[in-house]
Amino acid sequence: MKQSFAVIGLGRFGLSLCQSLTASGQDVLAVDNNEELVESYKEIVTQAVIADAQDEEAMRDLDIGSFDHVIVAVGQNIQASMLATLIVKELGAKHIIAKAETAMHGKALSKIGADEVVFPERDMGQRLARRLLSHNILNFLSISDEYTLAEVQVQNPKFSGKTLAELDFRRHYRLTIVAIKHGKKVIISPGAHTVIDLGDTLSVVGETMDVEYLDKKLSED
Amino acid sequence: MKQSFAVIGLGRFGLSLCQSLTASGQDVLAVDNNEELVESYKEIVTQAVIADAQDEEAMRDLDIGSFDHVIVAVGQNIQASMLATLIVKELGAKHIIAKAETAMHGKALSKIGADEVVFPERDMGQRLARRLLSHNILNFLSISDEYTLAEVQVQNPKFSGKTLAELDFRRHYRLTIVAIKHGKKVIISPGAHTVIDLGDTLSVVGETMDVEYLDKKLSED
Ligand SMILES: Nc1ncnc2c1ncn2[C@@H]1O[C@H](COP(=O)(O)OP(=O)(O)OP(=O)(O)O)[C@@H](O)[C@H]1O
Ligand SMILES: Nc1ncnc2c1ncn2[C@@H]1O[C@H](COP(=O)(O)OP(=O)(O)OP(=O)(O)O)[C@@H](O)[C@H]1O
Ligand SMILES: [Ca+2]
Ligand SMILES: [Ca+2]
Ligand SMILES: [Ca+2]
Ligand SMILES: [Ca+2]
Repeated sequence: MKQSFAVIGLGRFGLSLCQSLTASGQDVLAVDNNEELVESYKEIVTQAVIADAQDEEAMRDLDIGSFDHVIVAVGQNIQASMLATLIVKELGAKHIIAKAETAMHGKALSKIGADEVVFPERDMGQRLARRLLSHNILNFLSISDEYTLAEVQVQNPKFSGKTLAELDFRRHYRLTIVAIKHGKKVIISPGAHTVIDLGDTLSVVGETMDVEYLDKKLSED
Repeated sequence: MKQSFAVIGLGRFGLSLCQSLTASGQDVLAVDNNEELVESYKEIVTQAVIADAQDEEAMRDLDIGSFDHVIVAVGQNIQASMLATLIVKELGAKHIIAKAETAMHGKALSKIGADEVVFPERDMGQRLARRLLSHNILNFLSISDEYTLAEVQVQNPKFSGKTLAELDFRRHYRLTIVAIKHGKKVIISPGAHTVIDLGDTLSVVGETMDVEYLDKKLSED
């Protein structure tokens, strides 16, 4: 189903969002007060407009309240981000997502009317830290406070050439392997006789503590 | 195991990284040429230093080559980001991660010596777009080009109060449910008689196309 999106503020985050939405065939209006930037967007999005998001008249003229989703991706100018959010809210926007700099900025945006607040830099900083601190975890997804889905890579020869049964994987690590990626091949729900090879990526699910234990064991000589 | 990290450029991404690493008990040196910023970091990290990353002498004095990981998180000043990466490489840093603005910037950073290049804004823009376009997918992890692990939320009464067997889930959707989150409770590897309730979150694994099909079906009346 085609939906309409208005992206206000065309930094790197806004640009990426516009590109992805447009690539999926959505209607995208891109707004920025930087003329040069808007010019370069003309070929990417449905419509690109030079306007100041702090100018209520200008926002009304764009009929900003009629879009299915309005994303305020104005960044470092906190005043502009807050005023823009306030204005699109007043103009009746149904679903407003705003990008925040700090926790405090985020709180203010919620109070002003943002339905969702995103912190791209904070989130990616946390993700990178987590990746750097784990040795073999490539990627993860928190299911709840206690449970994690994680992709771990096997780089330890001790684990290689063995079947899941030989490793007594489920009992010993208390994790379920939901998929094994071997080169380009993916095995979903591998059986006890599946062999693990060096370089394989295991998608596992279980308690976060147990995922961390596996990560540690995968790093030991 | 404690490791040493040098974070150069204390924007929001660098700050978040420093905070997460420090919270995990790591040794963190934070570097920026903005005096005020560095002052406010003094209480967060192991050491915070005012220095210009484009100044080879200054970087040598910080013994930047001796850190386990050096992260160049200098952002919009592309020249500074490239020169800083070049200098830390020349000073013998073992593992360099650099933040890039654009694909071209990223390529240049790799050639100059970055072992990894990250694009926080681009990645988060893509993630938000994907979330906005899917109706029920809360989160996902690409296992390969073809396979996806996804968290989908059940908001459709048609799916509620039924067991996986009644929904003929595995055969009909060609997906494996690896976990079901019901309030705070998480059921790993649910059996055929597990009941799905409104608001439950299903972690599923399978072909990306099939995940999209489920997402679509979950939105139909
Ligand atoms: N009042 C305004 N009206 C419209 N656009 C604005 C306004 N103020 C700032 N912008 C635009 O918002 C965009 C994003 O702002 P800025 O670069 O400060 O944020 P950022 O957080 O660094 O972005 P990113 O990290 O996504 O690159 C810029 O292109 C800027 O021109
Ligand atoms: N030559 C330099 N030496 C040291 N620090 C620098 C240098 N140039 C820029 N920085 C610092 O890098 C930090 C990040 O830069 P900038 O704010 O331009 O990036 P950004 O991509 O908008 O950051 P973020 O999105 O993470 O907030 C700033 O605090 C800036 O002072
Ligand atoms: Ca910017
Ligand atoms: Ca910025
Ligand atoms: Ca900045
Ligand atoms: Ca940024």
